[in-house]
Amino acid sequence: MSTLALAFDLGGTELRGALVERGGDVIARVSEPTLAGAGSEAVIGQIIGLAGKLLNEHPQARVIGIGACAPGPLDPKAGIVIGPPTLAGWHNVPMIDILSRQFGLPVRLENDANAAALGEWRFGAGRGTESMVFVTVSTGIGGGVIGDGHIYHGRRGLAAEIGHMTITGEGDRCFCGNVGCFEAVASGTALGRRATRLTSARDGSLMRQLAGDGEVSARHVVEAARMGDATARELVEAEAKWLGIGFTNLLHLYSPEVIVMGGGLANGFDLLAPGIRATIDGRAMAAYRDVPVVPAELGDRAGLVGAASLILWEGEPGTALAMVQNDTTKAGGQTGSNQTKRA
Amino acid sequence: MSTLALAFDLGGTELRGALVERGGDVIARVSEPTLAGAGSEAVIGQIIGLAGKLLNEHPQARVIGIGACAPGPLDPKAGIVIGPPTLAGWHNVPMIDILSRQFGLPVRLENDANAAALGEWRFGAGRGTESMVFVTVSTGIGGGVIGDGHIYHGRRGLAAEIGHMTITGEGDRCFCGNVGCFEAVASGTALGRRATRLTSARDGSLMRQLAGDGEVSARHVVEAARMGDATARELVEAEAKWLGIGFTNLLHLYSPEVIVMGGGLANGFDLLAPGIRATIDGRAMAAYRDVPVVPAELGDRAGLVGAASLILWEGEPGTALAMVQNDTTKAGGQTGSNQTKRA
Repeated sequence: MSTLALAFDLGGTELRGALVERGGDVIARVSEPTLAGAGSEAVIGQIIGLAGKLLNEHPQARVIGIGACAPGPLDPKAGIVIGPPTLAGWHNVPMIDILSRQFGLPVRLENDANAAALGEWRFGAGRGTESMVFVTVSTGIGGGVIGDGHIYHGRRGLAAEIGHMTITGEGDRCFCGNVGCFEAVASGTALGRRATRLTSARDGSLMRQLAGDGEVSARHVVEAARMGDATARELVEAEAKWLGIGFTNLLHLYSPEVIVMGGGLANGFDLLAPGIRATIDGRAMAAYRDVPVVPAELGDRAGLVGAASLILWEGEPGTALAMVQNDTTKAGGQTGSNQTKRA
Repeated sequence: MSTLALAFDLGGTELRGALVERGGDVIARVSEPTLAGAGSEAVIGQIIGLAGKLLNEHPQARVIGIGACAPGPLDPKAGIVIGPPTLAGWHNVPMIDILSRQFGLPVRLENDANAAALGEWRFGAGRGTESMVFVTVSTGIGGGVIGDGHIYHGRRGLAAEIGHMTITGEGDRCFCGNVGCFEAVASGTALGRRATRLTSARDGSLMRQLAGDGEVSARHVVEAARMGDATARELVEAEAKWLGIGFTNLLHLYSPEVIVMGGGLANGFDLLAPGIRATIDGRAMAAYRDVPVVPAELGDRAGLVGAASLILWEGEPGTALAMVQNDTTKAGGQTGSNQTKRA
């Protein structure tokens, strides 16, 4: 069996584990509901349990390290999960220290959006590019940016907080407190909310029927639009326009070779694409208009294979492990811990 | 005399040349009005003329290369000035080829905003940081981004088109055709236009008096605000709010350690700073709020010393010349020309 990484994708709802090969293939996968309210020790116990399960079932596996991703804010260089809103009782948890002590293996950590961006960049829709923006559109909007052949971290790994880019002065207030966040107007949640407002329970509308007369979600809107419902199609068109405005900003700011769209709403990518394209064509400066927007390819394994690639990636000489955690040693004169610098 | 670079800052109005030392000190400077309407050959003739002047006056100078900056769009890796709106008759001019043939020296090229960002990062207000956003606010809004110890280029060197980030749905239409560009609501031009609309010739207002009863410019607004004029102060406050909204986006998107503000409006930085800070405190997510916003330090020599640093910089081992033009060889497997790859 070839060299493998243990990969973990820690979400607020589900904890996923996998054994991943160098080429990005997932050879075994496990998951369980995250004990999100039980604090960090309980969840780390779950990670250890899933690792044991994977290793027991594949005793011949040559595991050379652990790549993990978790919700931000998270400091990838220091290896610390700072305090994700979806995980109770997590405050500055030194994930790399804990897991490397537990397993005696090198451990790398990345926030979930960046890990998914790495996955799509190295093994999915962004393969072969040097600069890519990954945008995940579902409950919220998140993202990860590859710039000039590197994942773009910025201070404390906090770059690419795409969902909280202000793009308008209108719309509902975002949970962050502002009006006009990209997420507040263009997320799946925003789309569902608009559909819910436009309809009412038992009004006979297709969207409400699909929703069992409950609140309409983005999925119902896409489904109804696919069935030809006129209101749903208008909602999809408006949604595509907001996405196009945000994507145009991302083109101007990051100048990627491609924008990769993932997340739940990517299920409606074919319906959204013409409106996104028309908005970009109408708003982007000429030099950016030919940049493609494409759907993600890896679905819910993007984070897992991206996390695994923190350990396994050798696609670019000299950038394997060094690339993600070693930027400080190259450029800043800061010293990281030995833990995080080891290749 | 220590090792020097010849530096040129080609603007739509003025062409500047200098001899710059390794530490960023300008030891000689020349300039003349750019023959902006006369086409690229005439302007390159000016560059050659200014170079001759500098070298004749400093015959002992050990010049090891030429660093130049010009308005975008511009491809720094290919060394091509694509077609700046302020220079007539420039279409895909291979500046690096032309100048290196002429002088027999290595030549590096960067767009003007990136060169100014490099100058401020290496020798000015961004010294010692690993991630920095430079924003120049004057007639328009431009910028350059240092991310994780590198200037951020993106595809064709077109990243950081900060002025055309949509931040609102209101305000005057931008020259680019959109409504809501950062530049359209927050540039010095936008501020002057608001002041001009709020007043009228011979209305006795301080701003109009300062403007000789002509159109009010941003400079007049700042001057009047400094003298205590209430309307001017309100305009400055509104301006600071727009800048704060844009800067908050830049914090969320690039996560810099510092935002450096240059350009003509930086003359009013002390008046704008409290409003910018209040807006950031009110809008940025908690983890970004402690990032300082500071005025640029190098004034109109930022571009020159930044361009020179493309040749001279040795502040970070291994990143000297390689850093700016060689990204392709590190990460992409693309091959640049020998011209652009040589150290």
